[in-house]
Amino acid sequence: MAEQVVAKGLEGIVAAESRICKIDGMAGKLYYCGYAIEDLTEHCTFEEVTYLLLHGNLPNVAQLEDFSGKMRKSRDLAGLVIEMIRQFPGRAHPMELLQSAISYLSSSVRHKIQHSDTCDCRTTLHQVVQIASVLATFWRFRNGLGYVPARMDLSHGANFLYMLRGEEPEPLEGEIMEKCLILHAEHGFNASTFTARMVASTKSTCYCSISSAIGSLYGSLHGGANERVMEMVDSVGAKEDARAWTEKALVEKRKIMGMGHRVYKVKDPRATIIEGLLNDLAALKKESGGLNILKEIEKVVVEKMEADGKQIYPNVDFFSGAVYRLLGIDPILFTPIFAMSRVSGWLAHIMEQRVDNRLFRPKALYVGPEPFEFIPLDQR
Amino acid sequence: MAEQVVAKGLEGIVAAESRICKIDGMAGKLYYCGYAIEDLTEHCTFEEVTYLLLHGNLPNVAQLEDFSGKMRKSRDLAGLVIEMIRQFPGRAHPMELLQSAISYLSSSVRHKIQHSDTCDCRTTLHQVVQIASVLATFWRFRNGLGYVPARMDLSHGANFLYMLRGEEPEPLEGEIMEKCLILHAEHGFNASTFTARMVASTKSTCYCSISSAIGSLYGSLHGGANERVMEMVDSVGAKEDARAWTEKALVEKRKIMGMGHRVYKVKDPRATIIEGLLNDLAALKKESGGLNILKEIEKVVVEKMEADGKQIYPNVDFFSGAVYRLLGIDPILFTPIFAMSRVSGWLAHIMEQRVDNRLFRPKALYVGPEPFEFIPLDQR
Repeated sequence: MAEQVVAKGLEGIVAAESRICKIDGMAGKLYYCGYAIEDLTEHCTFEEVTYLLLHGNLPNVAQLEDFSGKMRKSRDLAGLVIEMIRQFPGRAHPMELLQSAISYLSSSVRHKIQHSDTCDCRTTLHQVVQIASVLATFWRFRNGLGYVPARMDLSHGANFLYMLRGEEPEPLEGEIMEKCLILHAEHGFNASTFTARMVASTKSTCYCSISSAIGSLYGSLHGGANERVMEMVDSVGAKEDARAWTEKALVEKRKIMGMGHRVYKVKDPRATIIEGLLNDLAALKKESGGLNILKEIEKVVVEKMEADGKQIYPNVDFFSGAVYRLLGIDPILFTPIFAMSRVSGWLAHIMEQRVDNRLFRPKALYVGPEPFEFIPLDQR
Repeated sequence: MAEQVVAKGLEGIVAAESRICKIDGMAGKLYYCGYAIEDLTEHCTFEEVTYLLLHGNLPNVAQLEDFSGKMRKSRDLAGLVIEMIRQFPGRAHPMELLQSAISYLSSSVRHKIQHSDTCDCRTTLHQVVQIASVLATFWRFRNGLGYVPARMDLSHGANFLYMLRGEEPEPLEGEIMEKCLILHAEHGFNASTFTARMVASTKSTCYCSISSAIGSLYGSLHGGANERVMEMVDSVGAKEDARAWTEKALVEKRKIMGMGHRVYKVKDPRATIIEGLLNDLAALKKESGGLNILKEIEKVVVEKMEADGKQIYPNVDFFSGAVYRLLGIDPILFTPIFAMSRVSGWLAHIMEQRVDNRLFRPKALYVGPEPFEFIPLDQR
């Protein structure tokens, strides 16, 4: 073959059809299965959105009741899993624990089923739910606290905060946690979602596929940007210093964390929503939580960029770290919370991949040495 | 964009350059870093081949001694890992255990290092080595036996058999195990290797990348074919019945396991080598181990196919299950042994990916519903 074009990073390659997520980068619109993210965040629970992603349509009252019930029944951790978390090496990152725990959970279902073509991942919701419980329990153990049994009457987000803190969160806190989970649940073929589909394409189990996606999300080029936004906020220190800090950073061509997005040419619609949540939460907590600093950074960047004819706006990571921090969540949990939300999207993609599967198997362009003679060990 | 061609399964897409593996499908030749698989199997140890894959050149005596020493020192399992294996749910597949255990091991190194650009996976060989120890220990625990501490004087393959059986294997058995590991160590961008590169492209740790690759190899479209070859051998029963069985299977257009390969248009060079190993082992064990049945199936298939102008020959999976069975290895370990070998190739690809990295992020072609109005829950 004369021309072997290398599609580095698979950039521009359309790897599959999908019915799950529509992103209109020019208009700044995001839809899950045809529904605008603004509507879903405003009106739905995380369980309802998970149903939407897995079934392709919103549930009616009876369907939602049944589905939520199934998810809630899966909240508590088995004794063996609690012990596994307790014994997991102390310096492990919770993403390592999550990846390990999900493969572990795989063994608690009849895995033969998972290999069959007719397997329906929708029957194995407990992995979706248990990520939240594993994380909360990890954090408590690491901080010398005990396991908190799940509450069945709380939303998924509120129950996570409850299992983390050991006390019921304010209703607004629970709602905000829910909305954050909804906002991060799905976003097309990012690296972790594509990893999930890739592994699913070998007919591996959905647990193993999700475990692999977690490994992918752990990478610093994928998850973790909101943690670094908060480091930026801390290094700025006060609102008054934000303009000077940002102008200097721009002059020095340093990357402003949480600004700019490959797809969105306007403000990421999720950033707009999270900014609203941060506003509400700051009012409840009677502290800014970095909102004033973030707004000032945004203002300076947008101004300067527009002056240069460029368009760079906040993305989903810009305000989310500040929300989590005001909710009292340890930064080490920021990326794992991304996994706890995105797992719904991963599962939807795994199911979609299975329907019309073809094993992903790209080619490599060999650029290594031509064959040479073997040299025995004693002559090297 | 007018034309959005979907590259289903990424077929025909060249996803990256690589210096590791050259496959000449027409000539039936396979090279690791320029060295023919026949030479490597004949003259090298698995440790030596691992060095080759990770460094791009064969070691001299001093380098090999240092490298082997490092690998051997990593053989024994830490107490916590032994406990984890002991407590892993009994009905789990060992691939689930492996995926979980490798993420677990990740936490035993300083993971910050793993994220840095300068991280050298070659310093973390213990994950390569420990897969063998985890597997042997898993099998012993499942069979009511105890942990066998590693032997430092044996080759990697012989030590695996030793830790599995609790007694030293015959020298020829150890050599054959080594050669099987060498033969499976690398084969370009198969699904698991590409999964490893994909996860590495997010700058995740090499442990998490390998854990993800294990999830991918677990899929029934990827690992596991040699296990099904042996089911075929068992259902044939005797050499005398092999011709009739095969002819019937061909008439009924049933798939003959272990025959045919996407890339090789002639006999897979690895199949030729493994056939020789099976021959030697059968002589040692004074039993055919299915070799006579396999040779008869091969003969009939090749004959019939060539008569139809088609070329279908044995691939690497055709004889390997019979070798493992004669080595007394439980079929549940066949796919995990593939992982135990391929991990060297995965690590080589992870390192190569890191050198000139671009995050893998293909596109999806949206074919779902156009945006519609939100319908409140009580109106659905």
